[in-house]
Amino acid sequence: MSDTENSPHLPIEDFREYGYQLVDWLAEYFTNIESQRILPEISPGDIRAMLPDVAPEQAEDMGHIIDDLDRVVMPGMAHWQHPGWFAFFPSGVSPVSVLGEFVAAGLATQGMMWSTAPSPTEIENTVLDWLVDLLGLPSTWRIDTGPGGGVLQMSASDSTHLSLAVARHHAVEAGHATDSLVAYGSEQAHSSIEKGARIAGYRHIRSIRVDESFALDVDALENQVEADLASGLVPTWVCSAVGTTSTTAMDPIRPIAAVAKDHGMWHHADAAYAGSAMICPEFRNLQDGVELVDSYTFNPHKWLLTNFDCSVFWAADRSKLIDALSILPAYLKNESSGDPAAIDYRDWHVPLGRRFRALKLWFVIRSYGAEKLRDFVRSHVDWAKELEDRIQADGRFEVTAPRTLALVCFRHVGGNDLTKSLADAVNASGTAYVTPSMIDETQFIRVSVGSTWTERHHVDALWELIDLHGAPV
Amino acid sequence: MSDTENSPHLPIEDFREYGYQLVDWLAEYFTNIESQRILPEISPGDIRAMLPDVAPEQAEDMGHIIDDLDRVVMPGMAHWQHPGWFAFFPSGVSPVSVLGEFVAAGLATQGMMWSTAPSPTEIENTVLDWLVDLLGLPSTWRIDTGPGGGVLQMSASDSTHLSLAVARHHAVEAGHATDSLVAYGSEQAHSSIEKGARIAGYRHIRSIRVDESFALDVDALENQVEADLASGLVPTWVCSAVGTTSTTAMDPIRPIAAVAKDHGMWHHADAAYAGSAMICPEFRNLQDGVELVDSYTFNPHKWLLTNFDCSVFWAADRSKLIDALSILPAYLKNESSGDPAAIDYRDWHVPLGRRFRALKLWFVIRSYGAEKLRDFVRSHVDWAKELEDRIQADGRFEVTAPRTLALVCFRHVGGNDLTKSLADAVNASGTAYVTPSMIDETQFIRVSVGSTWTERHHVDALWELIDLHGAPV
Repeated sequence: MSDTENSPHLPIEDFREYGYQLVDWLAEYFTNIESQRILPEISPGDIRAMLPDVAPEQAEDMGHIIDDLDRVVMPGMAHWQHPGWFAFFPSGVSPVSVLGEFVAAGLATQGMMWSTAPSPTEIENTVLDWLVDLLGLPSTWRIDTGPGGGVLQMSASDSTHLSLAVARHHAVEAGHATDSLVAYGSEQAHSSIEKGARIAGYRHIRSIRVDESFALDVDALENQVEADLASGLVPTWVCSAVGTTSTTAMDPIRPIAAVAKDHGMWHHADAAYAGSAMICPEFRNLQDGVELVDSYTFNPHKWLLTNFDCSVFWAADRSKLIDALSILPAYLKNESSGDPAAIDYRDWHVPLGRRFRALKLWFVIRSYGAEKLRDFVRSHVDWAKELEDRIQADGRFEVTAPRTLALVCFRHVGGNDLTKSLADAVNASGTAYVTPSMIDETQFIRVSVGSTWTERHHVDALWELIDLHGAPV
Repeated sequence: MSDTENSPHLPIEDFREYGYQLVDWLAEYFTNIESQRILPEISPGDIRAMLPDVAPEQAEDMGHIIDDLDRVVMPGMAHWQHPGWFAFFPSGVSPVSVLGEFVAAGLATQGMMWSTAPSPTEIENTVLDWLVDLLGLPSTWRIDTGPGGGVLQMSASDSTHLSLAVARHHAVEAGHATDSLVAYGSEQAHSSIEKGARIAGYRHIRSIRVDESFALDVDALENQVEADLASGLVPTWVCSAVGTTSTTAMDPIRPIAAVAKDHGMWHHADAAYAGSAMICPEFRNLQDGVELVDSYTFNPHKWLLTNFDCSVFWAADRSKLIDALSILPAYLKNESSGDPAAIDYRDWHVPLGRRFRALKLWFVIRSYGAEKLRDFVRSHVDWAKELEDRIQADGRFEVTAPRTLALVCFRHVGGNDLTKSLADAVNASGTAYVTPSMIDETQFIRVSVGSTWTERHHVDALWELIDLHGAPV
């Protein structure tokens, strides 16, 4: 790095100074986040109105730019890291993962091939092999011993889309017309199933009925598959949700796998949220049969203390992936091309470039250790159960879906309006944030316990808000 | 943030301490990177052999983990940020962008919708509007005034894939069979064209002949389109490379646009590398006709001082994008859904989740200012031209492709073996790294000037290596 007067870059001593300043700024943010209103009180366009219409011609002072974090950014933040954030699913983070992301950003390596990033590549496949064991997944998914293997992706949507595209590729290679292929998921599966299938070019996307627990009804799946076959269509891909987004319902992997096997379908397991819980053996019954799927995704960036983006995708047979995706132009050929110990991750997903995302995950798993990670997940499940008990014990409310992990779904027995106004009142507090949702015209409230800074007393405080604002029956 | 003994997280004071330590570590890295050997002397598996096979059960000391940056990570690094890195295209970074990434990681917000991340969303669309003007692109691509708009993606591969999928979607909506669609790019187009088209489900992918400057031959394109039409196929998508990867050849956008218009094809411009240069008006003739394309991508993470990932994708008509991708489940409905001032970026690409990537880009553009950014690009083009002059003046070498920006392609006049051994000798120095490549059986050497810390004297030193190792004729 040049410190000469001619260098256009921030001088090294300024980098240190502003670096320290931003470490302090984040430390303050983590410490005081609870004093922030969770959702901002602004309207669309308010932030933009604070910004100039055109870029500055002249350099601005870095201190002034940093001041704009408080002046411009903060007034428009939805504070996902507020300990009262019970909405959606958590957006994982930890002090340690942030430090890992920082270092990775500075190294600015490009991990498209082993040869362009040997240690990022080997740390990635090592850490993903660790996770195979940590989550109790089939050891054949370890890249060091089995035909399978894991790769970091941006999001579960990317992973789902990838599995759909790979399945489509092999179906077409086998001689089927693209427009005859069918993808299946439950009507409660994540929107990324329909979106991914649409982007991957499926013309036939089936939303299969769910049972009373909101899990996929396997008879309905079998019937739909038969009907599609009778119409000359080709069942190609099916998803088992290991935890749906609305209610964390668990699709029955084992019988779905039987249907998939009978018809030669690619079977993808979407454990975006719930996968993190599988580090605790007591929850693994929720994904019974997982050894039968062809691919699996889960997001450490949801519930495993690692900041977005960090989604793991495993293929039970990595050659299926690589066969569909590998392209080797001259400028990417190198001496290690083809060496099985030198993984070229560019052949494992859509993008070519990739940053050193494994670093933060390596930091997180090592600095917490598996035991503390399990304790972290268990505490959330425990607190969710406590909240569920309170809700069930109160005549004003009822649970609307089985609680499988740390998501509680409930409603006011007085109906949709009272449920919606309860959610609105809780959210208007500014100290807690829940997601109002809907299944089959029934309004309910999702409470997802899992944010990094959430402690038991925050869940207690949420209950007090529910208790306070729940209309009498 | 809890500092109680029960908290599983790194205590806030430790975060500060290790944060400062890593700021210092990166400052040292930036300062001393030139003393590192560019490519590591290791074999596949060497890094992995230093790591345990299973994750630790107990927490490890953070200080020890940080020490492993030097013990484990560094020995396996290809130092993309070494000032002697002339390989591939540059991997952009700057001290300022790294600080932006750090803050974004700590905020750990999820920008899937305006309502979940108002300031990240509005800063993103503001900064991308700035870039429309900075690059001299059509003002109708500004989200605030036109039908177009920009969105940050991970990589140009993602952007290219996206445009292919959107074009396919609309072609199928218009009644065409998926298997009849055809995508076109030059035989010198980036591998992401073929890969993206394959992933998007195109069965017919045409590599069009190039002219002597390695730019797409429009007559050949027209002929292929006619032949495909005669075969009952449907020309659907065509790419103009604004700078091919091998040689930064410039496809002629304007006549390609005429072909695209005649046949109703989606016309995508891939300016992954060269887009950054368009901040300098004197280079814009290289993308004459850009106002006619349907989508455009460029990577600030290549040549605009912003660390990966940060790729911009513009659509000339954003409704084409949103129509193809929008899906709105109940748990994502909110009061601002549908408000045109509240952009929901999840409808603009494959993933749902997204981090606050615009922050680092905002930091970079403001802290450098447009003038310094132009100077930065111009300096690289000047140094590349100086190198080209030296090569042309030396009877041992010849330039193998027109230099359009800061990439110089040359060979030893004595043939492939002497060219390859020259590249090997330069790379064996450990102080400079170039890419040996090949077109039509002709070996050549790519020298890409553009790394953040590269100065003129590094290009001089590269010439000395070439001069030293170039065999006499």
